[in-house]
Amino acid sequence: MNSKSKSRLVELRRDLHERPEIGWREFYTTGRIVEELEAIGPDELYVGREIHREERLRPPTDEQLASARERARETGVDEGLLSKVEDGYTGALAVLRKGEGPTVLLRVDIDGLPQSESDGPDHQPAAEGFRSRYEKRMHACGHDAHAAIGVGVLEAVKESDFEGTFKVLFQPAEELGAGAASVVGSGHVEDVDSLLAVHVGLDVETGVVIPGIESFLAINGFEATFEGAPAHAGNSPQEGAHAIQAMSTAVGNLHAIPRHADGATRVNVGRVEGGTATNIVPESASLEGEVRGTTTELREYLEEHAVRVLESAAELHDCEVDVAFRDGAPSAECDDALVDAVSAAAAGHDATVTPDEGDALGGSEDATRLMRAVQRNGGDATYVGFGASNPTGHHTATFDVDEAVIPLAVDVLTDAVRSVATAE
Amino acid sequence: MNSKSKSRLVELRRDLHERPEIGWREFYTTGRIVEELEAIGPDELYVGREIHREERLRPPTDEQLASARERARETGVDEGLLSKVEDGYTGALAVLRKGEGPTVLLRVDIDGLPQSESDGPDHQPAAEGFRSRYEKRMHACGHDAHAAIGVGVLEAVKESDFEGTFKVLFQPAEELGAGAASVVGSGHVEDVDSLLAVHVGLDVETGVVIPGIESFLAINGFEATFEGAPAHAGNSPQEGAHAIQAMSTAVGNLHAIPRHADGATRVNVGRVEGGTATNIVPESASLEGEVRGTTTELREYLEEHAVRVLESAAELHDCEVDVAFRDGAPSAECDDALVDAVSAAAAGHDATVTPDEGDALGGSEDATRLMRAVQRNGGDATYVGFGASNPTGHHTATFDVDEAVIPLAVDVLTDAVRSVATAE
Amino acid sequence: MNSKSKSRLVELRRDLHERPEIGWREFYTTGRIVEELEAIGPDELYVGREIHREERLRPPTDEQLASARERARETGVDEGLLSKVEDGYTGALAVLRKGEGPTVLLRVDIDGLPQSESDGPDHQPAAEGFRSRYEKRMHACGHDAHAAIGVGVLEAVKESDFEGTFKVLFQPAEELGAGAASVVGSGHVEDVDSLLAVHVGLDVETGVVIPGIESFLAINGFEATFEGAPAHAGNSPQEGAHAIQAMSTAVGNLHAIPRHADGATRVNVGRVEGGTATNIVPESASLEGEVRGTTTELREYLEEHAVRVLESAAELHDCEVDVAFRDGAPSAECDDALVDAVSAAAAGHDATVTPDEGDALGGSEDATRLMRAVQRNGGDATYVGFGASNPTGHHTATFDVDEAVIPLAVDVLTDAVRSVATAE
Amino acid sequence: MNSKSKSRLVELRRDLHERPEIGWREFYTTGRIVEELEAIGPDELYVGREIHREERLRPPTDEQLASARERARETGVDEGLLSKVEDGYTGALAVLRKGEGPTVLLRVDIDGLPQSESDGPDHQPAAEGFRSRYEKRMHACGHDAHAAIGVGVLEAVKESDFEGTFKVLFQPAEELGAGAASVVGSGHVEDVDSLLAVHVGLDVETGVVIPGIESFLAINGFEATFEGAPAHAGNSPQEGAHAIQAMSTAVGNLHAIPRHADGATRVNVGRVEGGTATNIVPESASLEGEVRGTTTELREYLEEHAVRVLESAAELHDCEVDVAFRDGAPSAECDDALVDAVSAAAAGHDATVTPDEGDALGGSEDATRLMRAVQRNGGDATYVGFGASNPTGHHTATFDVDEAVIPLAVDVLTDAVRSVATAE
Repeated sequence: MNSKSKSRLVELRRDLHERPEIGWREFYTTGRIVEELEAIGPDELYVGREIHREERLRPPTDEQLASARERARETGVDEGLLSKVEDGYTGALAVLRKGEGPTVLLRVDIDGLPQSESDGPDHQPAAEGFRSRYEKRMHACGHDAHAAIGVGVLEAVKESDFEGTFKVLFQPAEELGAGAASVVGSGHVEDVDSLLAVHVGLDVETGVVIPGIESFLAINGFEATFEGAPAHAGNSPQEGAHAIQAMSTAVGNLHAIPRHADGATRVNVGRVEGGTATNIVPESASLEGEVRGTTTELREYLEEHAVRVLESAAELHDCEVDVAFRDGAPSAECDDALVDAVSAAAAGHDATVTPDEGDALGGSEDATRLMRAVQRNGGDATYVGFGASNPTGHHTATFDVDEAVIPLAVDVLTDAVRSVATAE
Repeated sequence: MNSKSKSRLVELRRDLHERPEIGWREFYTTGRIVEELEAIGPDELYVGREIHREERLRPPTDEQLASARERARETGVDEGLLSKVEDGYTGALAVLRKGEGPTVLLRVDIDGLPQSESDGPDHQPAAEGFRSRYEKRMHACGHDAHAAIGVGVLEAVKESDFEGTFKVLFQPAEELGAGAASVVGSGHVEDVDSLLAVHVGLDVETGVVIPGIESFLAINGFEATFEGAPAHAGNSPQEGAHAIQAMSTAVGNLHAIPRHADGATRVNVGRVEGGTATNIVPESASLEGEVRGTTTELREYLEEHAVRVLESAAELHDCEVDVAFRDGAPSAECDDALVDAVSAAAAGHDATVTPDEGDALGGSEDATRLMRAVQRNGGDATYVGFGASNPTGHHTATFDVDEAVIPLAVDVLTDAVRSVATAE
Repeated sequence: MNSKSKSRLVELRRDLHERPEIGWREFYTTGRIVEELEAIGPDELYVGREIHREERLRPPTDEQLASARERARETGVDEGLLSKVEDGYTGALAVLRKGEGPTVLLRVDIDGLPQSESDGPDHQPAAEGFRSRYEKRMHACGHDAHAAIGVGVLEAVKESDFEGTFKVLFQPAEELGAGAASVVGSGHVEDVDSLLAVHVGLDVETGVVIPGIESFLAINGFEATFEGAPAHAGNSPQEGAHAIQAMSTAVGNLHAIPRHADGATRVNVGRVEGGTATNIVPESASLEGEVRGTTTELREYLEEHAVRVLESAAELHDCEVDVAFRDGAPSAECDDALVDAVSAAAAGHDATVTPDEGDALGGSEDATRLMRAVQRNGGDATYVGFGASNPTGHHTATFDVDEAVIPLAVDVLTDAVRSVATAE
Repeated sequence: MNSKSKSRLVELRRDLHERPEIGWREFYTTGRIVEELEAIGPDELYVGREIHREERLRPPTDEQLASARERARETGVDEGLLSKVEDGYTGALAVLRKGEGPTVLLRVDIDGLPQSESDGPDHQPAAEGFRSRYEKRMHACGHDAHAAIGVGVLEAVKESDFEGTFKVLFQPAEELGAGAASVVGSGHVEDVDSLLAVHVGLDVETGVVIPGIESFLAINGFEATFEGAPAHAGNSPQEGAHAIQAMSTAVGNLHAIPRHADGATRVNVGRVEGGTATNIVPESASLEGEVRGTTTELREYLEEHAVRVLESAAELHDCEVDVAFRDGAPSAECDDALVDAVSAAAAGHDATVTPDEGDALGGSEDATRLMRAVQRNGGDATYVGFGASNPTGHHTATFDVDEAVIPLAVDVLTDAVRSVATAE
């Protein structure tokens, strides 16, 4: 791609990096992307509610929405745009109608994480002035670059000889494991013949392309709410049923669910809250956690154990517990034809093509929901990784990506999209 | 007292009952009380910041203040008054200068609790329409009645033959164990010769007066903040140091600190919070708890154990912990002269006088800080209990008081105050 | 008493001190006591099985019996005697028939504890050569002195003007909370009009007599056996149900059962065992614990919570648990007539008589079962304490008693027994 | 092999199956094997102490030895043989000197497990009358068949054209992770050019041979002894430091050590014991556990975490802990030359040769110590698996092997041994 486009995409990535937003609250992010898309001029553009089913996983609270809207307004998001997303249905889908041919979908995700970014002098975003403006908000997984890549590919495909329909999905709420399921429910992927999902970083050097990543862990999240009985902690502790003690018993034992010989498993309690004041035996407490496994069976093994641990821990302290699982995400399978198409495209740009060596083991991706949806309809799908020489691991305060990955990914994906059309 | 005064005080109590406010945020409450006081016309009236030292225990957050201010404005609190308390230094002190004589202080507390009130048909405040307007806010310990009693005694003493100086302290933040220490630091109690503190309810019938309660538990609160290391819960769980696991290990073991043969002990973790998202090994978590014991030595025993549990639990999960204790409150000793004065006054109103039979065991009171301060200066103090036939225990959703206690307490306390002056 | 008798009793006490035996295995102890009794010549002498019902609480295992028998033989216990107790029904009851008059029972207990004795130079038994010969066996609660006192009183009453029937019960298995229930079942206490039980030490100085101790805690013991499923810990950890994890979850939560505002409570898990090898997920584990409370209600509160904790902890780890409670012991009530008789006797020997100031709080005593049995039949009972200037607490490795307590207790109890007969 | 030999080996296997013995106590087992070996007549025969270094890992207690010796005598073990092993140095090594040629070692292990065997009608050993005679003793891992195979190969190689030195090691204490290290220390493997270790079962069908298993987990065991302070559980619980609570805190948290993204990990606390009586705050408690990982680094990760958990849990309850790790075992690497030799031999007997597909994942083997020792000296080693259609998993009560594996393994291993000599 030309250097003018390249510098524009880098600028876009840095702009988004500076204003990370949590899933279902990507107000500024969606607005900024839509601005770019409108400049390119797709044939159709769907924003916010138009790309989602009504029922979402992990919707934000009214308070969270209010706070995010306020911040978006302060940042100067256009009110017209804001009106389309302010209820928390975020993201966008651009469509190019370029004659007869297959329907190809490129999916990128756009949300940030609820963690603070490093301000160390060695951290590039800090050194170059585009570190996150907000406490407890950070693009620590490269979704800022994904958004830029999506814009770049849209523009390049528009200008290319591609024949068919090309869609780029700027998906929200990936980190919540929620956005993909919602888009699947909207019907926008039903006509897709080929799906390309993309991720940068992966602890791999820039210039390396992994055309078919399958080593994602199946995942599911859950929330558990413990209800006990309040009591004065001094006068009548015996009359309470201590919800925080129940929750704490569960936390320890959840992490101690037996390992499984059939493959890798993960358990994490990532969030807890409970009680009101030190002198009241706490009546309620809640936790949010997740389980992952290399197969769906392992995930189910963990889910089953987790329920038993949660219910027994509640009972142990004379409390009740309500356990709600999310929809989760399965593991991925990549189709050879698409993997080959990406490999060829990568080779054409002097990239080093390597197979998935389990590098993603431990990670999960709700793109797998989109992949399964496309495959169920007879389409093909793959998940493409682009090394970006990230200095530290994903989800850490000093995560960053080598911006050289942006033009390379645009070029390789554009060529892969083109070759898919040709192959038909 | 006459029935007009009585019905006014009941009205005041119900008005406050309907609008309970948490400690350091008693904006409406202070305003309403000041209104009553101004109607009586004390010689001096100190409001908000004027009765506190600068450094407070457990100050509210800016956010909590903002939210409480907003609610107070909606309820129509006068802006002039609000300006005196809006920084969270609440409460008031009224002073009568009635010639030569001793300085007597009556202390009542005015704050509510962070719990929801019952809306059951058998619950008097619900049945008669003065149930708390707010979720998670309730006068579940009778401080609404205390405020009314304080107003009533001020008026009665003003009109009486009392000679000397009489002060009524409407103390905020008792439930936080914070208000008394702050008032002691202001100097307003340095000249006090006799201090009467008062509580209603106590699971005792209306008509019973306990002139000297000493069975309060010494208490202290603490906050512990655990800091671990974040990590992606799927990709690299081994790189995290799990602050929520550390906290959970502490919770279980805090409640299991050995009982002590020298007397009653209490431990409660009343509030926890931690983590950000299910897919991040949580980096931080915090808890708030308290310990109580029949003696200061027992409280110290618990404090010492609590620190060891917290620090070891942190270390166990490779985390750090910061433990901050509050100032706490000691146990009480009542002076015979005052106890006798109250007994005589109670007998004069056909009340049944009973000694403290440990009825308050389990409760704690930061009035004990005021009592110790007065006693250190050579003054006398006592803590007076008035039975109020409360249907259920303190700090429960159906707690209520028999309003007949209000005129009785006003009468008994007024006479006790008068007799103190005479006795000099 | 004369110095010859006194030195003989001290010698007896030291001989028993050197050879402590656990409850239901007091082979040497019973033999040595019987020897002394036969020298005195009671009218009737019941040994071993003759003073017990068949069904005992906490009977020893065959292995424990075999090992104790072997040790007894090595120590030279007479085979004839051993044949009467070798099945573990230990202890003895001596009866004097001295004409018409009331039946008075003196109860002393004779068993030791499973702990090792100090060999420090300041520990009298070590310094003077009568320290326990055995590891993990110690008279750390003064029962050696009790046995000597029992012998002394039998002799003194025999030689006295007492008229009536006098029994001295040398009760086994007090520390197991088991011996008294068994003797009650034998019928030997059915005709008793007055019961005196006795204890020395109590952290009180020699010369002090407490004629009626009531502050024992009600107690109950329990055993819980967890059954899970075994599995190879490396090949298939997921197939196991980890009995030791279940038990550990229970241990932590048992000690964290909420304190109770109505009085003192105690919980202790005193013994655990489980599993077979490091490479097998443990299939079974068991614990032994106890609960105590100032009232029977509190004990029941704890029992109820303990069962829930144990069952839920088992369920949490997919295990089953079998919980078996023992018979326990209630709290004591002393009859005034007997308390007065002891007080008078004590005063007659220049002892300092003091009421029970809760000094025994925390301790429990299965003598309370005998007391209740006698009282149910219309008899009187009391529990008498004799201070013995013990240098460190009961059940510690350096516990000891001032032997001067032995003649004093013999004299006071003898006079009390005599006065009971006279009073009739 | 001929059917007479075959039936003799099956008889031997069943005889051993009926009398399983724990590591370092294989008295009957060693005696019975030596009897067979003497019938074959090796050139040299080393028994018991002669094949071990002095310092052993996990030696048995005197009591365990005494009990095992007694059982061996009851079973009629020859006193001459018993004198060679009664101190617990068990096992045997037979040597054939057959001229010039390489030194080949076949290693089989002979110990049983501390678990009870099924008596269900579908369990072959129960149905056919050779179920374990003892409670808590079982050949649940096929070492009985290994011993028979070792005897069979010795006889077959003796009668074969093999030229060189052939040793068969009947190694004790494999399940303790202790026997191999001891034999390495004896020097008997220093001259070995080729080592074949063998295992049957592996959840694979009879007829399948895996010529080179490498997927063993690195392993280490540990013992932790907690020391607290005793106290009377009723009188002075506050004076105790509760070793069982400390241990329980450790148990829960050991199993909750974070999973690791680099590979499989295992943690198991397989044995606990603590305390003496319900009324004493337990002074001491101990646990035995193990950790495993796919690499040495993972094992070290677990060891490091385990130490921190154990020490912090002790500190949390004011106890001390002593942690002792064993020597552990590394993972295995198989040499191609030997793997090929076994493959060729297996093919020659119509066996199905399959590579290691991680079937052994989760298991560990102290044979890896012998393999490393041989490889360090320039020799080759491999670990050969023979499927035996085991109906249920290793280390379960219904584990069994298809005895058809015995002649197949003898034939394949004999041919492999012969071919090694030829290849030189």
